[in-house]
Amino acid sequence: MAGAASDLKLLGVWTSPFVIRVRVALNLKGLAYEYVEEDLGNKSALLLRSNPVHKAVPVLLHAGRPVAESQVILQYIDEAWVGAALLPSEPYERAAARFWAAYVDDKVGAAWRGMLFACRSEEERAAAVARAREALATLEGAFRDCAGGGPFFGGDGIGLVDVVLGGYLGWFGAVDRITGRRLIDPDTMPLLAAWEQRFRANDAAKGVVPDDVDKVLAFLQTLLAIGSMK
Amino acid sequence: MAGAASDLKLLGVWTSPFVIRVRVALNLKGLAYEYVEEDLGNKSALLLRSNPVHKAVPVLLHAGRPVAESQVILQYIDEAWVGAALLPSEPYERAAARFWAAYVDDKVGAAWRGMLFACRSEEERAAAVARAREALATLEGAFRDCAGGGPFFGGDGIGLVDVVLGGYLGWFGAVDRITGRRLIDPDTMPLLAAWEQRFRANDAAKGVVPDDVDKVLAFLQTLLAIGSMK
Repeated sequence: MAGAASDLKLLGVWTSPFVIRVRVALNLKGLAYEYVEEDLGNKSALLLRSNPVHKAVPVLLHAGRPVAESQVILQYIDEAWVGAALLPSEPYERAAARFWAAYVDDKVGAAWRGMLFACRSEEERAAAVARAREALATLEGAFRDCAGGGPFFGGDGIGLVDVVLGGYLGWFGAVDRITGRRLIDPDTMPLLAAWEQRFRANDAAKGVVPDDVDKVLAFLQTLLAIGSMK
Repeated sequence: MAGAASDLKLLGVWTSPFVIRVRVALNLKGLAYEYVEEDLGNKSALLLRSNPVHKAVPVLLHAGRPVAESQVILQYIDEAWVGAALLPSEPYERAAARFWAAYVDDKVGAAWRGMLFACRSEEERAAAVARAREALATLEGAFRDCAGGGPFFGGDGIGLVDVVLGGYLGWFGAVDRITGRRLIDPDTMPLLAAWEQRFRANDAAKGVVPDDVDKVLAFLQTLLAIGSMK
C-alpha cells in the first residue's frame, strides 16, 4: 500500500505516550503522514466523529477511515504495510510481545497516571513511583528474554514493546525532575537504561519522544487544568 | 500443527470469563486439550511457574510452553492453528474486532467486577449495573456494523468479539437473578439478546458457558471468601 501523506492523518497530542508510540511506528515503516495536534480542552469535530466511543487520541485516519486505540493502531500499521515489522513472525514470539506490551500499559501506565495526574499528595505520588519502579524492574528482567541478545525488546530492531514503553520516556524525564531521582536507574536497571539511550537515539524516535523536560512540565500544568489526559 | 490433547493444557477456573473465551476458541478450532481446574485459594505450582507475572488463569500450555493473558492466548490460537478464524483477514476489519474486544474488557469487564465483587453496597451495585447496561447498549449499536448482517460479531461465524463477550454470559445470568431484571434486555437490546441465544446454542460454547445460575451464585460466595477473582 502507498503511504502518501494525503492518505494518512494522525490526530494526537505531542506528550501522549499513546500518540508517541504510533508516530514512532509510522516512522519505522517509513510512512509519511499528516500530524494534527489536538487541543484536549476543545477537541476537534473530526476527533469526536472519528472516535465517538472514547473521544480520545490517537486516531489514525487511513484514506478517511478511522482506527482508534493505540495498541490496535500499532497492529493495524504492522498488518496493513510491509517494511520493518513491529511484531515477530512466529506465533509464540508474537504472543510474548503482546503479553509484555499489555503489561506495560497495565502496570507502567497505571503508575504513570498515579505519579503525575491522579496523586493528591506527595505520599500518593511516592507510592505510584514505587509501583512504577517495580514494574520497570520486571521489564528489566523481561528485556533479556525478549531481546535475545539484541539491542531492543524486538531483538535487532524496534518492536511493539519498544514503542509502547518508549512512548512514556518523555514523562519519565518529568518524574525524574520532580522526584530528584532517575526512574530508570542505570545502577539497578542497566539494561533498560542502555535501551532508553538507544531508543531515543533511533531516527524513528528523534523529534517524537519529548526531551525538553521544562516543556513537558509546563504541559502537565495545562493537562491538570483541563482535568483530562485523553 | 497437530492439536493432540497431550500438546495442549489449559489451566482455568470454570466461571472465569477469561477462561471460558479460551475454551470456546479451542473448541471452534477443533483442538483437543486437557483442562485443569485451578483452586484460586491454593494455586498449583504449575500455574505459579507458568504465569509468574500475574499468577492468574487462564494459562495455555502448548508443548509445555506457557501463554498467558486471555486476549493474547486467543490471538495465539488464531495464529498458531488453521481452521475457523477468530479474526478476519482484512487489516481494517481486524482492527475493528480488536477495538471492540478491548472495549468489552475495558467497559463490560470493569462493570462486571463492580456488579459482583467490588460493590460494598446495593447503591454501588446499581451504579455498576447501570455502567454495564450503557456498555452493552454501545455494543448493541456496534453489532450491526461488525456482523454485517451475519449472526455473530464475527459475521457468519463466532469471532474474537463473540468469545470475549460470550465469556461473561454465565455471570450475566447471576446478575439477572440478583437484580431481578435482565441485563441483556430483549426489549432494549434485541440484537444482543438474539446473539446470546445463538452463542449459547453453538457447539463450541455448549457445556462451557455456565447455565446453572444457582451453581454460579454458590461459586460467587467461594470467590468472595477467597477475595480474588484471578
